[in-house]
Amino acid sequence: MLNHPNLAVVGATGAVGMEMLQCLEERKYPLNSLTLLASARSAGKNISFRGENLTIKELTPESFSGIDISLFSAGGDISKTFVPHATAAGSVVIDNSSAFRMDNGVPLVVPEINPEAAQNRPRGIIANPNCTTIITCMGLYPLHRKYGLTGIIASTYQAVSGSGAQGIIELENQTRSLFNGDPLIRKIYPHQILHNVIPQVDSFLDTGFTKEEMKMLHEGRKILNLPDLAVTCTCVRVPVMRSHSISLTAIFAETPDPAVARSLFSGYPGVKLMDDPATGLYPTPLDTTGKDDCLVGRIRPDQVIPNALALWIVGDQVRKGAALNAVQIAELL
Amino acid sequence: MLNHPNLAVVGATGAVGMEMLQCLEERKYPLNSLTLLASARSAGKNISFRGENLTIKELTPESFSGIDISLFSAGGDISKTFVPHATAAGSVVIDNSSAFRMDNGVPLVVPEINPEAAQNRPRGIIANPNCTTIITCMGLYPLHRKYGLTGIIASTYQAVSGSGAQGIIELENQTRSLFNGDPLIRKIYPHQILHNVIPQVDSFLDTGFTKEEMKMLHEGRKILNLPDLAVTCTCVRVPVMRSHSISLTAIFAETPDPAVARSLFSGYPGVKLMDDPATGLYPTPLDTTGKDDCLVGRIRPDQVIPNALALWIVGDQVRKGAALNAVQIAELL
Repeated sequence: MLNHPNLAVVGATGAVGMEMLQCLEERKYPLNSLTLLASARSAGKNISFRGENLTIKELTPESFSGIDISLFSAGGDISKTFVPHATAAGSVVIDNSSAFRMDNGVPLVVPEINPEAAQNRPRGIIANPNCTTIITCMGLYPLHRKYGLTGIIASTYQAVSGSGAQGIIELENQTRSLFNGDPLIRKIYPHQILHNVIPQVDSFLDTGFTKEEMKMLHEGRKILNLPDLAVTCTCVRVPVMRSHSISLTAIFAETPDPAVARSLFSGYPGVKLMDDPATGLYPTPLDTTGKDDCLVGRIRPDQVIPNALALWIVGDQVRKGAALNAVQIAELL
Repeated sequence: MLNHPNLAVVGATGAVGMEMLQCLEERKYPLNSLTLLASARSAGKNISFRGENLTIKELTPESFSGIDISLFSAGGDISKTFVPHATAAGSVVIDNSSAFRMDNGVPLVVPEINPEAAQNRPRGIIANPNCTTIITCMGLYPLHRKYGLTGIIASTYQAVSGSGAQGIIELENQTRSLFNGDPLIRKIYPHQILHNVIPQVDSFLDTGFTKEEMKMLHEGRKILNLPDLAVTCTCVRVPVMRSHSISLTAIFAETPDPAVARSLFSGYPGVKLMDDPATGLYPTPLDTTGKDDCLVGRIRPDQVIPNALALWIVGDQVRKGAALNAVQIAELL
């Protein structure tokens, strides 16, 4: 681990940026200095960190002088523009956007799964995977190690936090408007999200799949080092604040036994079993909100596909799905 | 069709019972008389129907004298107790509960799919299927006729109306309480439903599946007359008021073509295509709420299973999922 690095957070005022600061605090990440970078609009504002007030600075090409590690979470366009400046200044970049995830020479890392990949970063960039993909991989990895994952059929229940702070505000505002009898305003989502579900996350490709749905395929293959992994995914936005859920049929090379499958989660870092139908035990999004661990339940034999399990995985999208995973990557350095 | 029958609605004050009255009104069902039956608690209350005030009568074993058709929607226990009295009095029963659905000699009918089954009712009972199963079958039937359905992998997004009026009240109350800063009270659901999703509908069986999840298998086989249909279902309650959505992988005997599949919905009664990714067109629960038609979108080739399509089906649970389907069965008589 780098000894007390100078660390920068780009996009410090966003939902994920704020959570990164909280993860750095909670985990007592050993810093020399912390630089908070954001747009000119946010520059000059103060954010409290470890009892100190830090002033946000405007992100510029010159921001990265002397910075050892830069955590980017300000969207793909900002990453494409400013990551090259950061790496040119000698900073290792951990990028939460999708800009570099599928590039050769950029490792895509979930520290509990492929920490070794973080050490081979010829371009000085490590990509933080898509939130839904991280949470799904966390839940499947203990099963994969035993049975050999070959395919995934997934339907997601994705929180509004996946759209950043604006998504959370939109659900809050629509809830308030309904209560007040005001018209429900849409800014972020193409349809009302309160008391509704929307089977579209990100934009559509010509194939009829969305970009988000293809991330589960491409990023899942890269993280798990399974170039032939087959994935069908339907991504759905639901009126939940910040934890994603995934309903899965997971197909394996070997026949999985549900009781053995449950035992595989014991002692596994970052993922916990919460699965006892007899007592009505299974995870819901509220169970993981603000927590580090992904939770797995509803494990049972799939009735359609041999060698498959049906299961249900939940994780905090802002935390393990984004900020925590990025800070854990920083801890690997 | 029976000529101007005397019709009774059992459970007239429930969410589905009230919707049955609305469907009878809208569809100008040709009645001689309408008798509204409910518990002693509701007896004496008035309900408006076709501009008249009808007084609710207490349900008793003697309620069915002279009644030609009885629509039951007051739960399985009421059906088990009172349906025999209705049939003994010579009434044909259309039962919305699960009490008789899987009994031999009781047809399970979706009028657009197996109307002929309603004519063979040796016990005088016709069962109205489970709401999620009706909506799923409506969306799949045009595809099944062309390609031959063999299997279903489904994840559901089920509205609180599936728990009756009390489910709707619980979501409304939790929304109000959050806004007022009051504690959120749970009565119907084992977890908070506002801003959450709950992967449990109905109670668990020893297999780890819920009763609701097995209805898709057993009732789907009976409605579609497919004794070997394979089904894996994960039923999830979501904070939506009254339309259910289903994310599906549908497996067929023959290789389906997505473009042809879309064309199969043209002119099909009770189900409409709403599927154009290029313009962001797909159905959400709010699109079907209060409407008769089920809507289908997001049709694309499944990437894991050969001969399969991924798709998304939405329908109003109270309406086509329950009340409308029952009234349509009455229209078959």
